[in-house]
Amino acid sequence: MRTHADYARALDTRDELARFRDEFVNDDRNLIYLDGNSLGRLPKKSAARVRTVVEAEWGSRLIRGWGEGWFTAPQRIGAKIAQLLGASPNEVIVTDSTSVNLFKLAMAALRSRPGRENVVTDDLNFPSDLYILQGALALSGRGHRLKMVRSADGMTVSDEALARVIDTQTALVALSHTAFKSSFVHDLAGVTAMAHRAGALMLWDVSHSVGAMPLALGDARVDLAVGCTYKYLSGGPGAPAFLYVRQGLQETLFNPIWGWFGQNGQFDLALDYQPGPGIQRFLVGTPPILSLEAIEAGVDLLLEAGLDRLRVKSVQQTEYLISLWEALLKPLGFTLNSPREASRRGSHVSLGHRDALRIDRALIEEMSVLPDFRYPDNIRFGIAPLYTSYADIHEAVVRLCRVVTERLYEKYPTERPEVT
Amino acid sequence: MRTHADYARALDTRDELARFRDEFVNDDRNLIYLDGNSLGRLPKKSAARVRTVVEAEWGSRLIRGWGEGWFTAPQRIGAKIAQLLGASPNEVIVTDSTSVNLFKLAMAALRSRPGRENVVTDDLNFPSDLYILQGALALSGRGHRLKMVRSADGMTVSDEALARVIDTQTALVALSHTAFKSSFVHDLAGVTAMAHRAGALMLWDVSHSVGAMPLALGDARVDLAVGCTYKYLSGGPGAPAFLYVRQGLQETLFNPIWGWFGQNGQFDLALDYQPGPGIQRFLVGTPPILSLEAIEAGVDLLLEAGLDRLRVKSVQQTEYLISLWEALLKPLGFTLNSPREASRRGSHVSLGHRDALRIDRALIEEMSVLPDFRYPDNIRFGIAPLYTSYADIHEAVVRLCRVVTERLYEKYPTERPEVT
Repeated sequence: MRTHADYARALDTRDELARFRDEFVNDDRNLIYLDGNSLGRLPKKSAARVRTVVEAEWGSRLIRGWGEGWFTAPQRIGAKIAQLLGASPNEVIVTDSTSVNLFKLAMAALRSRPGRENVVTDDLNFPSDLYILQGALALSGRGHRLKMVRSADGMTVSDEALARVIDTQTALVALSHTAFKSSFVHDLAGVTAMAHRAGALMLWDVSHSVGAMPLALGDARVDLAVGCTYKYLSGGPGAPAFLYVRQGLQETLFNPIWGWFGQNGQFDLALDYQPGPGIQRFLVGTPPILSLEAIEAGVDLLLEAGLDRLRVKSVQQTEYLISLWEALLKPLGFTLNSPREASRRGSHVSLGHRDALRIDRALIEEMSVLPDFRYPDNIRFGIAPLYTSYADIHEAVVRLCRVVTERLYEKYPTERPEVT
Repeated sequence: MRTHADYARALDTRDELARFRDEFVNDDRNLIYLDGNSLGRLPKKSAARVRTVVEAEWGSRLIRGWGEGWFTAPQRIGAKIAQLLGASPNEVIVTDSTSVNLFKLAMAALRSRPGRENVVTDDLNFPSDLYILQGALALSGRGHRLKMVRSADGMTVSDEALARVIDTQTALVALSHTAFKSSFVHDLAGVTAMAHRAGALMLWDVSHSVGAMPLALGDARVDLAVGCTYKYLSGGPGAPAFLYVRQGLQETLFNPIWGWFGQNGQFDLALDYQPGPGIQRFLVGTPPILSLEAIEAGVDLLLEAGLDRLRVKSVQQTEYLISLWEALLKPLGFTLNSPREASRRGSHVSLGHRDALRIDRALIEEMSVLPDFRYPDNIRFGIAPLYTSYADIHEAVVRLCRVVTERLYEKYPTERPEVT
């Protein structure tokens, strides 16, 4: 029986990636962590690496650390992330936050498409991305407008809906590849081709995709991308983000923020800005080394596991969770707020419920299950195939059923906690 | 005799701040570290704090860490840095890099002074600041120009020289308070008043001042400031920077980069940007928590020692170094490239020499002295009064003399190393 714990254990026994779970710190055995799509677990090797960076490098090597690895870390780690993106090593760099990187690339795109008056996005895009695009348009001062395609079902946006607004007036199409809320996955190659046919640039935010599925930015000739390292990459809280610029575009684009790390011959300390070669020009200031160096070990684990195998496991696990929803949770009033079709779904599954906010609190406080909550009524269950087990998923559903059937959520307030 | 080691030891014995040296990791007793103005030493408490953040918070509390201190760290640490700046707690926030912060504030300033066509700076300003200003002017698209006052002696810029260019066409005066190369210190209150008389906004980069001397941004009614946390604050390599906006200006200014950490009601996830209250609107994306949390312990040490006492010691130490230069180094061909007048000098002393580049290499490789080098011929000796001893300064000069008198530098190449 799929709903029995034995079934989950059998799947774990057959899981060829199961050994990777031991690469992560997991000292509370009762905790079920299903928020790796928001903050990935701590790789044991990252803890050791940060200790070395702080105690041996900063503590003893001091300023010499810059010449001994820190200075080239944005490129070195970027080249590894490029493998996760299906990009070339010199097309990716780690720097700043996802929002600041999006700002740089959106401004660059607007400038490179003069005469075109709009940017196309959709309302499934992450709100910070929408704000950044709105701000870039306000700054550009050329009457640019944001055309936001609205999702008809709150969960998906069709290619046809995009096709209706992408036209010869479109400078840039900027979308989240996997939607943060519903887990809907856009057709990366198809939408990119659509943008290119209209003469627009294509920018993907792959924050909720990278490390959970193979990506092929190079094959699709994607122009620009940004993404986050603290989700499936397990880079640590607020770890610096990455940006990708297709090689052929790098030296034609203009980084609006001219800092010394983007300067040609940085240590010449010339008085006038000259952008450096290639992807370097998209750097700005001094990178936060502790947070930056913490990223690498998690990326190494993903590369070792292999994205194809991770995607197979991820799909199997989200399908398993959906089958448990159908059998056990749907009767309790939960709705499935993610696409049914696995090929259009990322590695998290969203469930809605009239009492979702209080159920989420009870799950955390009473049941030691940590999902993610998105206001107003959406509980996200994030599956990180490197360390999420089938038993985790089964047990989370069992505990979720208890919260509802035993009405454990009723004592929690209906207002939202400050930070979720 | 001032040139004897005994004299230095006697000064150390009388130093009431001497005990702070033990608060820092210092495991190579032969190393003389005079680059605390570039990367401050590691506070022992910072090493412990980072270990807690990584292992206990990220490792075990996982996503809950955001609600348990990470989320408010930009404000919490900003409020402590405000005490170093003579500012109010709600006027300072820690976020992004110094360059990105300067970009945000320069763009905000340009927008708030429409019709004024220039930005005033000087050629002692840090090159990354010049690049950021050039980029901001290029973006503004209103024909703004950068007016760069040139130093007559390569070391100082007079108030009179600034007065000649600051006028009713000036939107913004943007200067480094302490010059990164010569250590020259501008008159913060005087230049600010000059900018205000012309109706311009005043922005100070206090990277080379903060933590080394008291500052009074509030008393001087400074409008805007940015600064670095990895120098005298000992925040760690590339630690996030801070920005200051005078309270009365905060809600009139426009952050050009609209991210979710600046959004009013961030977790409402509304689709349209509405800037948050006060200083919060100058945040953008998710901050790098490991690097951010590492800042606090160093700031606490500075506050405990007290900036007035630190400045007294810093002046006494730079005077001492200059007296040793006069007696021992000047005869060997070294020039003093910092102001003689203590009130116009920061906490580092720059010495020039025809063979400075090779002398610097030999000092590092043969003599275990770590100063800082600025191309083409400038050796900076940074004094961090929290942990630099008089004996350090004396011994550094003795070793520097040996490098020159024994011609130990001659085997080093005349070209520059890649990173300095």
